[in-house]
Amino acid sequence: MTDAPKQIAVCGDGDPGTPHAEAARIAGRLIAEAGAVLLTGGMTGVMEAASEGARAAGGLVAAVLPGSDVSSVVAPAQVRIATGAGEARNVILVRSADAVVAIGGAYGTLSEIAVARKLGIPVFGYRTWKATSPARAGQLVEACATIEDAVARALAGG
Amino acid sequence: MTDAPKQIAVCGDGDPGTPHAEAARIAGRLIAEAGAVLLTGGMTGVMEAASEGARAAGGLVAAVLPGSDVSSVVAPAQVRIATGAGEARNVILVRSADAVVAIGGAYGTLSEIAVARKLGIPVFGYRTWKATSPARAGQLVEACATIEDAVARALAGG
Amino acid sequence: MTDAPKQIAVCGDGDPGTPHAEAARIAGRLIAEAGAVLLTGGMTGVMEAASEGARAAGGLVAAVLPGSDVSSVVAPAQVRIATGAGEARNVILVRSADAVVAIGGAYGTLSEIAVARKLGIPVFGYRTWKATSPARAGQLVEACATIEDAVARALAGG
Amino acid sequence: MTDAPKQIAVCGDGDPGTPHAEAARIAGRLIAEAGAVLLTGGMTGVMEAASEGARAAGGLVAAVLPGSDVSSVVAPAQVRIATGAGEARNVILVRSADAVVAIGGAYGTLSEIAVARKLGIPVFGYRTWKATSPARAGQLVEACATIEDAVARALAGG
Repeated sequence: MTDAPKQIAVCGDGDPGTPHAEAARIAGRLIAEAGAVLLTGGMTGVMEAASEGARAAGGLVAAVLPGSDVSSVVAPAQVRIATGAGEARNVILVRSADAVVAIGGAYGTLSEIAVARKLGIPVFGYRTWKATSPARAGQLVEACATIEDAVARALAGG
Repeated sequence: MTDAPKQIAVCGDGDPGTPHAEAARIAGRLIAEAGAVLLTGGMTGVMEAASEGARAAGGLVAAVLPGSDVSSVVAPAQVRIATGAGEARNVILVRSADAVVAIGGAYGTLSEIAVARKLGIPVFGYRTWKATSPARAGQLVEACATIEDAVARALAGG
Repeated sequence: MTDAPKQIAVCGDGDPGTPHAEAARIAGRLIAEAGAVLLTGGMTGVMEAASEGARAAGGLVAAVLPGSDVSSVVAPAQVRIATGAGEARNVILVRSADAVVAIGGAYGTLSEIAVARKLGIPVFGYRTWKATSPARAGQLVEACATIEDAVARALAGG
Repeated sequence: MTDAPKQIAVCGDGDPGTPHAEAARIAGRLIAEAGAVLLTGGMTGVMEAASEGARAAGGLVAAVLPGSDVSSVVAPAQVRIATGAGEARNVILVRSADAVVAIGGAYGTLSEIAVARKLGIPVFGYRTWKATSPARAGQLVEACATIEDAVARALAGG
């Protein structure tokens, strides 16, 4: 499938009042403008805002849902996958992506970052988790000062 | 998500030499022409032929893959979901569909039909499984004499 | 793990009023008496009766649950796995088994039989599904006249 | 299932040369001596050492495997569940546990901690991850100075 578009996952908190809605909207728009597919978890907060940004720019969005019914989708998306796997959908989302953009920082996002690192998928972070362990030195994510930079690097490096 | 397009899954054997390639190609084309999203398992045989039919007609195709890497995809698809779930991806595929078109009859297809029936998702079959049990009378699938009829009923009834 | 005990899955309808409760109880008891681990879906009906039969005989039972919380278990079991995968837990259940005993015939059971056949895991059936397709001749399961025979063959052949 | 034993997951790095083998072995032993079921990922490193500790003390161990075949198990375990879900098995492992003991710190362990926190399952850590985000103040895990303390709190609080 050499001609398939890149797939970029945007992960972040699902809080409908997230302070990162504008950043997420920009991320979605930039991904769409680059001709890449936006993958999100399909629910509220960062997921919804990113999806709206991409759709407004004419992009293709796929929602990888935790629920077992596609009608559970909140974010606008042409393709809706009902994994029915609960939190395990985070793994399906991440492993389907060429690169991950992580915005903000709740526990679901942390699980997505961790899985991406485990699988060797690059993660570009904006105002997200930092973590250290006795066994893993170095940055948890490629921290980016702007959302534009995070998306540009995800599109280039993913 | 009232304006999201319908999603129709086409299931069938993965044999690259399947006798049902032409039927699958027609199914993919008809689904695309109706503006619905085609969902397949993303591999060879019926999946690949249906995807080719939909793509040739300008349709949107999502591959719901058994493997853990999107590069495992064979069928043409704009969206590729790496479930990493092996045979359990059949469940994710089926539960994401408004209706299922089952073509031909290997065991994976039978599992998809069974899950769809369990979940109450309509299944329209073309040259596929028949099954009976002491506890379940009636047809396993809505058997259709032509692939055109199967798709039309899936689009109408899904 | 050469010394790990065999694992036998007993699948069947979840109807609390199943006509197969006695057969399931016998199956559970015989599996326990053979020193094998009983795997079930952990819910009502055949699953519960088989688990009761095994526990009463001092056997080890693991419930592979569809839900996301171990407290959803109904059948008695020392080990409870909350797959959170809904119907996809059927795949996890089957692929963990050395052999499957299928009792009775609802759609979930049919999906388990189909997955087992796909994966090459032997299935011994008692009053369960029959199925045919244009592409698959032969029996769907090894049909057994008695539950004792089904379990004996599962223990021997699994 | 009021009389079912507690289930405690021990998570940690899979490196066969892990520096935490002795701590893991102690954890397994203490869990077994308390009559609880030990859940692990069934592979090498911390998983294997914990399982050995529990088995040597006569405990019940269940391996929740990433692979699709029970023969992929490394750690000793009476029950082996082949999730076939890859990294998503971490979610199944965690959500089946009353409490999690996290030892050491690789990325898989971080994903397990994150999922547990998301699901509200208590996590007791020994020489494991610390993490902060702009949105989540407070400790990532309940950090414990000794493995004995981590297990005692998991058994009490889980």
